[in-house]
Amino acid sequence: MKRLSSLAVSVALCFAMPAVAAPADSVSRIVASQSYKTAAAALDSGHDQWVKDIIAITQIPAPPFKESVRAKAFAEMLRERGLDPSIDEAGNVLALRKGTQPGPVVVVSAHLDTVFPEGTDVTVKREGTKLMAPGVGDDSAGLATLLALVDSMNAGKVQTKSGILFVGTVGEEGRGDLRGVRQLFTKGEYKGKIGAFFSLDGGGLDGMTSGATGSKRYRVTFKGPGGHSYGAFGIVNPMVALGHTVTDLYKIRVPADPKTTYSASVVGGGTSVNAIPAEVWLDVDMRSASADELAKLEKQFLAIVPNAVAAENAARSTTAGKISAGLEPIGDRPAGHTDPNADIIRFAEAAYRSEGLTVKQGTSSTDSNIPMSLGIPAITMSRIADGDRAHAPDEWIDVSKTPNVKLQRILLTTILATAGVR
Amino acid sequence: MKRLSSLAVSVALCFAMPAVAAPADSVSRIVASQSYKTAAAALDSGHDQWVKDIIAITQIPAPPFKESVRAKAFAEMLRERGLDPSIDEAGNVLALRKGTQPGPVVVVSAHLDTVFPEGTDVTVKREGTKLMAPGVGDDSAGLATLLALVDSMNAGKVQTKSGILFVGTVGEEGRGDLRGVRQLFTKGEYKGKIGAFFSLDGGGLDGMTSGATGSKRYRVTFKGPGGHSYGAFGIVNPMVALGHTVTDLYKIRVPADPKTTYSASVVGGGTSVNAIPAEVWLDVDMRSASADELAKLEKQFLAIVPNAVAAENAARSTTAGKISAGLEPIGDRPAGHTDPNADIIRFAEAAYRSEGLTVKQGTSSTDSNIPMSLGIPAITMSRIADGDRAHAPDEWIDVSKTPNVKLQRILLTTILATAGVR
Repeated sequence: MKRLSSLAVSVALCFAMPAVAAPADSVSRIVASQSYKTAAAALDSGHDQWVKDIIAITQIPAPPFKESVRAKAFAEMLRERGLDPSIDEAGNVLALRKGTQPGPVVVVSAHLDTVFPEGTDVTVKREGTKLMAPGVGDDSAGLATLLALVDSMNAGKVQTKSGILFVGTVGEEGRGDLRGVRQLFTKGEYKGKIGAFFSLDGGGLDGMTSGATGSKRYRVTFKGPGGHSYGAFGIVNPMVALGHTVTDLYKIRVPADPKTTYSASVVGGGTSVNAIPAEVWLDVDMRSASADELAKLEKQFLAIVPNAVAAENAARSTTAGKISAGLEPIGDRPAGHTDPNADIIRFAEAAYRSEGLTVKQGTSSTDSNIPMSLGIPAITMSRIADGDRAHAPDEWIDVSKTPNVKLQRILLTTILATAGVR
Repeated sequence: MKRLSSLAVSVALCFAMPAVAAPADSVSRIVASQSYKTAAAALDSGHDQWVKDIIAITQIPAPPFKESVRAKAFAEMLRERGLDPSIDEAGNVLALRKGTQPGPVVVVSAHLDTVFPEGTDVTVKREGTKLMAPGVGDDSAGLATLLALVDSMNAGKVQTKSGILFVGTVGEEGRGDLRGVRQLFTKGEYKGKIGAFFSLDGGGLDGMTSGATGSKRYRVTFKGPGGHSYGAFGIVNPMVALGHTVTDLYKIRVPADPKTTYSASVVGGGTSVNAIPAEVWLDVDMRSASADELAKLEKQFLAIVPNAVAAENAARSTTAGKISAGLEPIGDRPAGHTDPNADIIRFAEAAYRSEGLTVKQGTSSTDSNIPMSLGIPAITMSRIADGDRAHAPDEWIDVSKTPNVKLQRILLTTILATAGVR
C-alpha cells in the first residue's frame, strides 16, 4: 500500500502546482502523434470486427458464478492479439501489455458476468444497427471494446510508460458482489501494483462514473410452521410477512439527490399449492451515492422486517409456531469516489473535449467501487454510445459506427494519457 | 354411466324401505364370522409389518408428477400379496381382488404422491411409537394400511361379493389436481364399473370425509418492464403488485362454517438482486365445503389482482412499461357429497360403533371429490389413529398398536360390508 500512499501524495502535490493545463496538453500531444492517428484509424477500420466480437461474446452465456466458459473464450481472443493472458484464482482474465517503465500498471477492465441465469436465450437479434439480447451491452460491449483498444494500440505500435493490464473480471453483477475486482486489488499478484483503474461499463456519450454508489443487499428468509392449506387454515403464513415487507419497503421515500434506491428483486419459496409455506425468501437491494443515506435506508428496512413479522404473528394463530425472519447479508459494496481533480478525470474530460463533447461525472455501482474505496484513482467509462434496458430481457445497443468509434477514440486517449506515452 | 344411474335409484329406493337397521345387522354378522375374526387377528399379528411398510414407502420419494418409482415398488408389494397389479395410463397402480359376483367393484385406494419436491430428505426418524418424515402419514400410512387390509383378507380367506379394486393413485396433491382418480372414473377400463369408493387418507379415530371440499387454484403471474435496480429506480415493480395481492387476500374474512379457506402457497421470480424483476408469480389455493362460498371467495380474489396491478401502475412510473397480471387456473376440484343415508356411510358408522366409537362426518378435498361429484357413493376414511403436520417438514404419526389395529378393523368391517361377504 506504500506505493498507493505515494500516489496520493503526488495527487495532493498537483494541487499546489500550476499544472491545471497539463492534462489538456498531454491529450493534445497524444492526439497529434502519428502513432495515435494510426491507432485511431484502426478503431475505424476495425468497426465490423468490434460488432462481430460483441455478438460472439454475448452468445457465450456467463451467468453469475458461471463465467468460466466466456473467460476462456475471452482469454483466447486476447491471445490472438499477441498478449499472454492468464486466469487468476477468482476467475478473472488478466493480460499485461508491457510498459516502457517499471512501476504501477493501469488496469483497463470490463466484466465477464451477466445478470441472466442459465438457460436464458442469449441469441443476438439484429435490426439495422440495433443489436438485441440479454447482456449484449452489459458488459459484452465492454469486453469487445477492450479488445478493439488492444487492436488499435497494436496497430499504432503504441508504447506506454506504465504497463496496461487488460482484465475481464468475474462477479461484477448481483451476488457476485465485486469478487473479481476485490481479488485483483486485495489478493493476487497485482495487489499494491495498480496505479489507476478503468472499467468499461454503462452507455452514452456524456457521462462517466467517478463516484461509487454503495450498496447493501440482503436475503430475508421468513419461516413459519407451515401446514395443510385447508386443515391448518388460520395459522400464520410467512408469505404475508414477505408481502408486508415488500409493500412497506415501497412506501419509503428516498432522496433523488444523493440518488438513493431500493429494489425487491428476487423471491422464492413454498412447496405446494395446497400447503401453507414453511419458508419463503426475498432478495433486496439498497443503494446510495451517500453512505449516510444508505445507512438511513438500511435502518428503515431493518425495522420493516421485524414489524412485518410481528404483524403476522398478531394477525393469525401461532399455536403451531410463530413466524421468524433471518437476514443474510448478500452484498456490501463500499461507497467512495475519485477526487474530481485527479489526473484520470481531467484526462477523460480533456479527451471528451478533444472530440467536441462535454462529460458529466456521476455515481454508480461498478467494479470501480473497490479502487475508489481504497483511494486508487478509478473511473468507469462508457462502452457504447447508445443503448438501454440493461438487466432486462429486452436489452439493446446501437452499434452505429460514427458515435461508437468516437467513443472508442475518447477511451483510447484517456487511457494513453493516464498510462503515459513515449 | 347407466350403471351409476341404477345405483342412484337403488339408494333412493332404500329410503322407502324399513331398512334402517340393515347396515348395523350386516356389520354385526360380518364381525361375528370366523373369517372376519381370522382377518382381524392378522391385522394384530401384522402390526410390525405395517410399520415396516410405512417406513419403506415413505423413504421412496414421490414428488408431484414423479410417482413412478414409488408406484413400481407399491405394485411389487401388491404382487407379493398374490394380486396381479397393473399401472394405468395416468400412473395409478390397480390390483383387483376378485369378487364372487359380477358387477361393479368397490375401490379401496390411497395416494402415491406427496407434496414434497425432489431432494427432500424423506428419511424416517423414530422416537418410541412416533415416526417423523415428510409424507410419513400423507399418504404413506394410507398405502401401508391398504396393504395390511389385503393381508388380512387373504389371512381370513375372505370372499367378497363385489370385487375389490385396490388402487394407489397418482396426482392427489397440489397441481396433480386429482388426475389419477379422474383417470380411474372418466377413462380407462374401470370407467362406469365402480359402485363405491374408499380413499384411505387423513388421521384420527373420530371422523370420516363424506363431503368434498371444492377448490380453485391459480398461478398469478405479474409482469412488468424490469430493469436495473439503480438505473431504472422509480419504475413499477411486479413484486409490489404481488405483495399487495398477498396482503389483500389475507384481509378477506371467510366463514368457519361452511369452512372456507385460502392460502398464498408458492412464490417465485426475478433474475438478480440488482435487477427490478420482469416477472414474479404466486400460487394461490382457495377451498370451501360450499360451492357458493367458494365462488364468493374466488370473485373477491379475482378482484384483488387487478386492483393490486392498478395500484402499482399508479404508484410508480410506467414509462418503460406497465404491470400486468395473468391468471392461470392450476386446479379445479369439484365440490360434492355422499348422501348421509347412503349405505357406505351407515356401514362406516356401524363399524365405528362396533368398536365402541362414534364418528363424525366432515368435508375435505381428497380423491373422493371425483366420485362424489359424479354421484358415486364415496368416503375418505382415516389411515392413522394419531398424527399431525401433514404437508409440513415436521409431519409425524403415532404407530401405537392398539388404536391403529382398532382403526384397521373398522376399515376392514366397512369395506367388507360395502362389498358384501358370502
